[in-house]
Amino acid sequence: MKNNKNKIDKVNHIAIAVNDIKTAGKVWSKTLGCNVSKIKELPEHGVKVIFVKFLNLKIEFIEPLGRNSPIKKYLSKNPNGGIHHICFEVKDINKAKEQVLQNGVKILNDGLIKNGAHDKPVIFLNPSDFTGTLVELEET
Amino acid sequence: MKNNKNKIDKVNHIAIAVNDIKTAGKVWSKTLGCNVSKIKELPEHGVKVIFVKFLNLKIEFIEPLGRNSPIKKYLSKNPNGGIHHICFEVKDINKAKEQVLQNGVKILNDGLIKNGAHDKPVIFLNPSDFTGTLVELEET
Repeated sequence: MKNNKNKIDKVNHIAIAVNDIKTAGKVWSKTLGCNVSKIKELPEHGVKVIFVKFLNLKIEFIEPLGRNSPIKKYLSKNPNGGIHHICFEVKDINKAKEQVLQNGVKILNDGLIKNGAHDKPVIFLNPSDFTGTLVELEET
Repeated sequence: MKNNKNKIDKVNHIAIAVNDIKTAGKVWSKTLGCNVSKIKELPEHGVKVIFVKFLNLKIEFIEPLGRNSPIKKYLSKNPNGGIHHICFEVKDINKAKEQVLQNGVKILNDGLIKNGAHDKPVIFLNPSDFTGTLVELEET
């Protein structure tokens, strides 16, 4: 890439979708000895969340909340749960969006930049255009 | 956990399985501006690999190599590719294995500790016992 001003160099978090974050938190803390946060409800994003902090990044477990939760479809296909998305940090979400579109990758939610679960502007890349992987870009 | 001597505190890498790592590398480097390594063949592990380094961890793209590649089944279910596993670092793989088994989580490959793609001892946790998520533990 010629213009690498908006180069992505840091993973913010990995999100794992499950049907029950309380149970998931117990399984991970017992088996791997990691520290799990309290449950946080984010009704505006249709999820409940717990955070597991590691030295170099955090993992977020997400459980559907409400009728229109955006992770319901994923869980109907993956009833045991699974790795839902990877979130990267970007300095400028507008430049990142432009760069993504220039490379023929669609943006979900009609291409709109919205505030994500951390109350920062985010976009989600269309997995079909991007190695089957749901990627979130978050302005930091 | 009472005994946290074998506490897991660092993610080593995220692995993304794809049918064609060369194309995947191009898509990621163009769209996100990240630097992609050369292709490495690991016939003993049934994969070809490219590495993408970020400040806090690396992502590995894996493509099936040979007839008995362990990622063929995943790709037949996810033909576009997808996030295959997360690898965590552990200090003592034997202790980690014991802790995993004590918590009722099965270990793949008949429970054997084998040398992984980085030539270090690894185990893989059974996703069905572990929030649908394939987790690799690697002794560092």
